[in-house]
Formats: sequence, C-alpha cells, structure tokens
Amino acid sequence: MTDVSGDVGIVTAALVVIGNEILSGRTQDVNLSHIAEQLESRGIRLAEARVVPDNQAAIIEAVNALRSRNTYVFTTGGIGPTHDDITAESVAKAFDLPLTRHEEAYARLVAHYDNLGVEINEARARMAMTPEGADLIDNPVSGAPGFRIGNVHVMAGVPKIMHAMLETILPTLKGGDILHSRTVFSSLPEGEIAAGLGNIQAEYPDVEIGSYPAQKRGEYRLSLVLRGSDPEMLDRAGEAAMVLIDAKGGQCEMAKGQEKL
Amino acid sequence: MTDVSGDVGIVTAALVVIGNEILSGRTQDVNLSHIAEQLESRGIRLAEARVVPDNQAAIIEAVNALRSRNTYVFTTGGIGPTHDDITAESVAKAFDLPLTRHEEAYARLVAHYDNLGVEINEARARMAMTPEGADLIDNPVSGAPGFRIGNVHVMAGVPKIMHAMLETILPTLKGGDILHSRTVFSSLPEGEIAAGLGNIQAEYPDVEIGSYPAQKRGEYRLSLVLRGSDPEMLDRAGEAAMVLIDAKGGQCEMAKGQEKL
Repeated sequence: MTDVSGDVGIVTAALVVIGNEILSGRTQDVNLSHIAEQLESRGIRLAEARVVPDNQAAIIEAVNALRSRNTYVFTTGGIGPTHDDITAESVAKAFDLPLTRHEEAYARLVAHYDNLGVEINEARARMAMTPEGADLIDNPVSGAPGFRIGNVHVMAGVPKIMHAMLETILPTLKGGDILHSRTVFSSLPEGEIAAGLGNIQAEYPDVEIGSYPAQKRGEYRLSLVLRGSDPEMLDRAGEAAMVLIDAKGGQCEMAKGQEKL
Repeated sequence: MTDVSGDVGIVTAALVVIGNEILSGRTQDVNLSHIAEQLESRGIRLAEARVVPDNQAAIIEAVNALRSRNTYVFTTGGIGPTHDDITAESVAKAFDLPLTRHEEAYARLVAHYDNLGVEINEARARMAMTPEGADLIDNPVSGAPGFRIGNVHVMAGVPKIMHAMLETILPTLKGGDILHSRTVFSSLPEGEIAAGLGNIQAEYPDVEIGSYPAQKRGEYRLSLVLRGSDPEMLDRAGEAAMVLIDAKGGQCEMAKGQEKL
C-alpha cells in the first residue's frame, strides 16, 4: 500500500467496459462514473474509456492500446461462467500469457459453492482461469474473484460486485496529485463570457476549465468547473471568472468541488 | 433518404463521447444507450464506443480509428462556444480539411440570436465553423447546428439537443438487417445452465446469446438475451434454452424484445 502524500505527478487510468448489453442500450453503464470518482479520490485521473463488445479481438485491442499509455487499466464485465464471458482469456492473449487455473481462485470457488450446497462444475470452474501469474482481487459478494495482471485490473460488471472489488484495489494503487475542483455558477450564458473565459484559461494553463450549461427547473444555469492540483490557483482562477461574470452584469457564486449531475 | 427495406447485411456504427465531465464522473453519460436503441431501430449496430477528454489528439485518434472500420461514426459533445469546445477543429484535422465558416450555419446563428435579441459575437460565431464541405445537422432546440463530414456525424452533448439532431439524421442513414431479440428469464443461476447454453450458442452461431444475472427485489433472476436478424431462428434458440432450463428443474418464460435495465 502506497501513501498518496507528496508530489508524485499525474497518474492516469483507462477503463474498458466489456459487454454487448451496454452497446445494445439494454444496460445503462453506471460503473464509469463510480470508478472515475473513486480513482480521483486517490489522485488518479480516468483519462479515457472504451466500450467494447464480447469479442476477443476487440478486448485485446483495447487492453493493449490502453495499458501501454496509462498507469492503470480497469476492465468491467465478462468474468462469469457462461460462453459470453471471455475477458480472462482475452486479457491472457493481450499479455501473450497462457490461461491457467489459479489454484487459490479455484479453492475459493469450491468453498463458496460448498457453502451454498452447490457443486462446482466445469462452467463454474472456468471462473478460476486467469492469465499465468495473476494476483486475485477479492470478491466478498459472489465468490468468483477478479484478478490483476501487470497494470490491468479485471473486475466484475455487476455494480455491487465491482464496487467491492474496487474497494480492495484502491489501497494498492500508487496515487498521484490529488485533483481539487471549484464550481462557479453563472447566470450568464456561455456565449456572453466565452471570450473572457478563454483568456482566463490561457492565463491558468494548469487549471482545467470546463463550461457546462444546463436547464435546472426550467431556468438556465451555467456551471464552470475548474480542476487542478493547486487549490490556491483554483481559487484565483475562480475569482477571475467571478470578476468576468460580474463585469458583464451577471450573478455568480463559487463552491468547492463539482456537483454530480 | 434511403429506405431500409431489403437484406442489406450488417451496418455498424461507433460513438465518440467527448468531454472531461464524463471522465471525471461529474456527468453520467446517457447518450450512448439512447443512440444505441435509435440506431438499432434502423438496423444499425453500435459496435464500439470511446469516451475521450477535451483533447485534440485524443479526439483525432478516436475519430480516425473508428471511421475507417464502421459505416457511421457519431460524436457527442464539444460543439459550444467556449474554449473547451474543440470538436469541430479536431474533426477537421482528423479529415485533414480546413476549418472554415459554414455560411448557412452562420446565417442560422445570426437569425437565432437575433430572435433572442442578442448579438452574435466572435465566440458564438465559432459555432459556425465546420470542416470544409460539411453538411449541417439541424438543431431545433438551441440554434447551433451539428454537422456531417464523410461518415462522421457531430452532435451536441446535451441530451435534449442530441435527441433532436439524431432524429433528423436517422432517415438519412442506410439501415441494415433489423436486429430482433428475445429474452428468456430463468430461475436457475448461470452456473447451472452455462454448459448447455454454450452448446446452444454453438448450434446457433448467428444468434448472439448474452447471459445477464441480476437481483430483482431481492430475488435472483437470470435474463438470457438472444439477438439476431432471423426471428424464427431466435424462437428456435429460445425454445432450446427453455428446454434446457426445464430439464434442469428451473422455471422459465420467453418474451419478445429485451427489457431495458
């Protein structure tokens, strides 16, 4: 377990969401936002994500593209006992490693099904197959563990199980600079302040400024979200945005953090 | 406008979701599932999706990777007037085309802001910039149009606007074979029927069979979703799944379509 204190720079992660049910619109993915927030609390930025079908070539391509350029990769989905669960074998191929039975995983599955009074069969035993050399990720909910190989963490797709797995993974990750945020709410529309806001962005290149208009209870409201690792710089950039809005005759206020929509 | 009737094979699409706010967990993407369902109603399969930050290199990479291997690409987000709206210039670079002012788009913006009694300024005029040769996509909600260049459709990220844009795009798309679906609900857990289900999948390679366990009001329920272009084949494969579940002592029923979760 690594401590996150100290200036350790930017640590990035990528997510591969695996499953036809997401791409068909049947299932609304809710894992991305949870993972993003949990990682961010450790100073790790979710830099990119891909949604791929239950297809070996697609999984391999995504895992290999993302693991080479991010500190960490996470996958969700495809680790059950049925024919469409092909994540473990695909990740093994991505690493060019044999897929072998992980004896500790197998022992856990035997114990889990023994507890339920159910016999382990060939399909269930498939869930003990991992790329050779993988470390297990505990699954306190339904027995079948996830695994880590290299910088890739393979997790379940069911949110409740994924949450539990991520909780056990987080303390093992090397965190980066914690990202802080401020939100400046503006009564003025984007077009009124866009030029000035662009100047502020240019003046504060280390602050990421996002502009998000929305209708809230029929009323227009613009949220300017400022993110960065230096809280004082965020406050200064936020103040500059408030001065800008005020000068244009608008109402504004600044809050810490970013509201979740 | 192309008619979708007739056996035109598989038509695929890819989605690029653009925006730091999605990757930070601030905003829950809800566009993917809507786009997936709307496309599917035209016989177009959403084959893959990527979520990328407001970063030119990332947008270019995603757009170019996906447009070369899918019939259509859709993007959401990043077409407003602020500094973080860089989709149009990024897509122009992806196509190696100059970014120029689209006079019809500009005229629409002028009319839109005129209606509101607001003057168009430089920031707002940016929303009329498109890759040279782009066709406009109507925006009945907030004026600023999207655009199509090659097989790439650039849409707003705000769901209400995106819905309206997609509605005007859909009739222009060449549809493929309509995908039908059946859902077989099973009282038995995945592990009990996984081997038999794998055999059914092998017997019906043109039917895509997904297995999705869930807890519903505290009760376990497994949904087997069968998808394919031949309804009779789906019925036969679904019947085979019901025979399998029945033989194992489980309860089951089959329904048309796939429930949205």
